[in-house]
Amino acid sequence: MSELPAAFAERLRAHLGERFITSKAICGQHAGGGMHLRPLPPQAVAMAESIDDIVAVVRACDAFGVPLIPFGAGTSLECHVGAARGGVSLNLSGMNRVLLVNLEDQDCTVEAGVTRSALNEHLRRTGLFFPVDPGADATIGGMASTRASGTTTVRYGGMRENVLGLTVVTPAGEVVRTSRRARKSAAGYDLTHLFVGAEGTLGVIAEVTLRLYGAPEAASAAVGSFPSAAAATTSVIEAVQLGLPLARAEYLDAATIAAVNNAFKTNHALADTLFVEFHGAPEEVARASERFKAIALDNGGGEFKWAIEEEERTALWRARHHAGFAVAASRPGARPWSTDVCVPISRLAECIVETKKDLASAPFPAAVLGHVGDGNFHVVLMLNPSSREELAAAEQFNDALVARAIAMDGTCTGEHGVGLGKREALVAELGASVDLMRAIKRALDPRGLMNPEKIFAA
Amino acid sequence: MSELPAAFAERLRAHLGERFITSKAICGQHAGGGMHLRPLPPQAVAMAESIDDIVAVVRACDAFGVPLIPFGAGTSLECHVGAARGGVSLNLSGMNRVLLVNLEDQDCTVEAGVTRSALNEHLRRTGLFFPVDPGADATIGGMASTRASGTTTVRYGGMRENVLGLTVVTPAGEVVRTSRRARKSAAGYDLTHLFVGAEGTLGVIAEVTLRLYGAPEAASAAVGSFPSAAAATTSVIEAVQLGLPLARAEYLDAATIAAVNNAFKTNHALADTLFVEFHGAPEEVARASERFKAIALDNGGGEFKWAIEEEERTALWRARHHAGFAVAASRPGARPWSTDVCVPISRLAECIVETKKDLASAPFPAAVLGHVGDGNFHVVLMLNPSSREELAAAEQFNDALVARAIAMDGTCTGEHGVGLGKREALVAELGASVDLMRAIKRALDPRGLMNPEKIFAA
Repeated sequence: MSELPAAFAERLRAHLGERFITSKAICGQHAGGGMHLRPLPPQAVAMAESIDDIVAVVRACDAFGVPLIPFGAGTSLECHVGAARGGVSLNLSGMNRVLLVNLEDQDCTVEAGVTRSALNEHLRRTGLFFPVDPGADATIGGMASTRASGTTTVRYGGMRENVLGLTVVTPAGEVVRTSRRARKSAAGYDLTHLFVGAEGTLGVIAEVTLRLYGAPEAASAAVGSFPSAAAATTSVIEAVQLGLPLARAEYLDAATIAAVNNAFKTNHALADTLFVEFHGAPEEVARASERFKAIALDNGGGEFKWAIEEEERTALWRARHHAGFAVAASRPGARPWSTDVCVPISRLAECIVETKKDLASAPFPAAVLGHVGDGNFHVVLMLNPSSREELAAAEQFNDALVARAIAMDGTCTGEHGVGLGKREALVAELGASVDLMRAIKRALDPRGLMNPEKIFAA
Repeated sequence: MSELPAAFAERLRAHLGERFITSKAICGQHAGGGMHLRPLPPQAVAMAESIDDIVAVVRACDAFGVPLIPFGAGTSLECHVGAARGGVSLNLSGMNRVLLVNLEDQDCTVEAGVTRSALNEHLRRTGLFFPVDPGADATIGGMASTRASGTTTVRYGGMRENVLGLTVVTPAGEVVRTSRRARKSAAGYDLTHLFVGAEGTLGVIAEVTLRLYGAPEAASAAVGSFPSAAAATTSVIEAVQLGLPLARAEYLDAATIAAVNNAFKTNHALADTLFVEFHGAPEEVARASERFKAIALDNGGGEFKWAIEEEERTALWRARHHAGFAVAASRPGARPWSTDVCVPISRLAECIVETKKDLASAPFPAAVLGHVGDGNFHVVLMLNPSSREELAAAEQFNDALVARAIAMDGTCTGEHGVGLGKREALVAELGASVDLMRAIKRALDPRGLMNPEKIFAA
C-alpha cells in the first residue's frame, strides 16, 4: 500500500490538529477483523467532532484519491471497518450530542457517534426510549450503517423501521438530508433506506433522526425450557399468531445456557430455552403471560420463571446480552466467531435442527442462540485461534449454514451485515440484484473511495 | 411526438396479439391527469398477463427507445401514469393472481395487478388481512410504486413498512428479486425500499411480497366532534402518547361532514370531527375506548358515538372513504383537486388552522380531511373546471400549503407521490438530495425510458 500523500496529511493536520493521528497503536484499534477475518489497520485516523470535520476529511480524501472508512464504536462483526485498501478511518465517536428530542412527535435527532445506551440515558426522564438493541453498545450511526436490529425487533422493528431521516456527507463532500421530519412521505426515492445498511460505502452518516417509543406501562419477562428447539420455536410462532405483545423472544440452546449459568451463577435447566418479554398495559401483559404459559405447556415446555420488577428483568437480559461472551469464556483461550442467518420463521426450527446436526460432528464447541420472533439466529463457534483445521472446518460449517438459510428463502445475514465476510454469500442470495447495487455504488461514489471492498469487491 | 416505429408495434403485436392496443379510446383511459394536470395519453397500451409479457415489452421498448409507463388501476393523483413523452402504457391489471399465502410467516406474494380489496377477499378465511388502505381500490403494484399509505398507517404502517420484497423487471429486461422472504436482512443495499416509491421510474414491479396481520380480536370505532381542529388533533396526539391501540384516527372538518351527511344521509354534528378506531384484545379495546373518551372530554370534545359491530364500523368507514367523492358532489359540476401534505404531528393543528385561513378567502369551496395520527392531511378543492381564475387561485393556494408544510419540517406529499405535479416541490423540500436521486435514475435507467418526466424533469 502506498503511503498517504504528504500534502494530504498536512491538509488534514491543519484542519484537525492532534485529531489527525497516524500512530500504529491507534490505527491498530481501527482495524476491524475478527475470528475469520484478519485486521486491516488504516494508515491514519481522523477524529471528527462536527459535520465540518467530516466534510473536510471527505473532501481531502476526494482530492487525493484516499480511501475513507467511517468508524463508530467498532463493534461490527464482518470487518466492516477494516481498511481493505488503506486510507483514513473517520472516527465519529466525538460526535456525541443529542441534538433534539421532540416529545410530542416521539422522535429525536442525534449525532452519529451517540451510543444507544447514551441516548437512552439521555431520554430517561422523558418517558420515551429508543428500543433497538443489538447487544453491543454500538453508535447510532454505526447501527444505521449496518441496518442493525436485535432482541426487541420482533416488537419495535430494527434500524430499518426506526430511522426517520439522515444527514449524510456525500462522497463529493456535499451535506444532504435524506428526508424531512414528517412521520411518512411519498416524496421521491427513499434515500433514507438506501443509506441505512449501506455500510458507509455511499457516504458518511453524520446525523440520524430516530423514532422513539413511550416506555411500556408494564413489562414482564420470563425464562423457561423446552424439550426441543422446535418446541421452543413453535411456541413463539403461536404467540405471534395470537397477537400477544411479545417485545422479546430469545432462544438459547443448552450449550449457551451452560455458559450463562457458569458466567452468571444462575441455575437455568440445561435445555432448549426461551427468554421472553411482554410490553403493554398491565392487564394486557398479565393476560399475555397467562396465555403464553398455556402455549408453552401445550408444546411440552416446563414451568416458566417470571420476572416482573425492572431489576429482575435487567438481570435476566444482562445474562442474555452477555451470552456471547459467556460462551466465548467457556473454552479458555478460544476466540469466538458469531455467525448470523435469518429465515422465514416457519423454517426456523428445521434450520436450527439441521445446523445442530452439523455441529455434532464439528471439531470445536459451539452454541446456538437467536431472535426467534424474527427467524434470526447466531451460532457462536469457539475456535482455537492457532488451529488451521478448526478454522477450515468453521468456514465449511458457515458456508453450509448460509447455503441452508438461502435455500429456505432466508438471508445470509439477518443483522450483522456483509462487510468483507459475506460478499460471496450476498451474490448467492440475490444474484443479479447485486449488479444494481454496484451500479448505484458507481453512480454515487464514482471514484470508489467510500469504504472500498465492503459489500462487494471493488 | 413521433409515431411508434412500425417494427416495434409489429414485434409487440406478435407477442401480445390483441393485448397490444392502439385505439384512441383505450389510450385515453391510460392518460392520468386530474384537475390541475392535463391527461397525457400513451400511443399504445400493452396488457401484461405474466412476467414474460413484461420482459417482452421492456426489451422491445429498450431496443426501439420507446418510453414505458407501468399502469395499475390508474387511481394515482399527480398524473403518475401520464405518457409525458408518449410511448407505451404497460397495464398490469391482468397480473391478478395471489401466488402464495404463508400462514405461519404471516406474509403473501402477489402479482402486481392484484387490488387490495381482491387480496383481502382472498384472505378472508385465513384470519389474516392486509391493512394498507389508501381509500381507492388501487393495485398492490401501484401502491408499492407510489409508497401509498392511508387510514390504518398510524397502527400498521404504509407500503414502506409492509413490502417485504419485490420481483422487478429492470429497464434492461432482467428479472431480479430485491430480497428473500426472511422478515429482516442486513444483506446489501435496501433495493426493496428503493423501488417502493420510485413511481415506475427505475423498473417495473411484477410481484410483491407483503406482510400480513392477524385480524384483531376486537375492534371499536367512534365518531365525535370538537370545538376546533386543534382540540381534535391534540386528542389524537395524547392518545398516541399514552400508547392507546389506535388503528385509525381521521380528522374531517365541518365542510367535509356537511358533504358526508348529504351524501350518506347521516346526521353528524357540523364541526371539526374525529373518526377513530381501536384494534386489540377485547378488554384492551374497551379500556382504550374509555380512556379516549376522557381525553376527548378534556379537550372539549362532545359525546362520541361508538360502533362495535362490523356492520356499523363498515358504514362509518364507508362514509370516510367516500368523503372525497361526497365533497366533490357538493358543488355540482365541480372537479376536485386533492392536495396532500404531511407535517410532524406537533405542528399539525397549526398547519391546519393556517391552511383554513387561506381557504376562507379562496374563490372556491374546499374541505379538509386527514390522517391525524401521521400528521398527514388533504384539502379537497372543488373547482369550476372552466374557470381559469379558480385554477390559478388553487395553484397559488397549493404552493402556499406545500411551502408551509416544508417550513414546518414536513413533506410536500405524505402519500400521493410526486408524479408530474410535485416535481418543483420535491426540490424545495430536499434540495441536493434530488441530485442523488437523479444519479440513481441515470445509473439504473441510462436511456431514461422508464416513466420519463416523473419525480424529476428528464
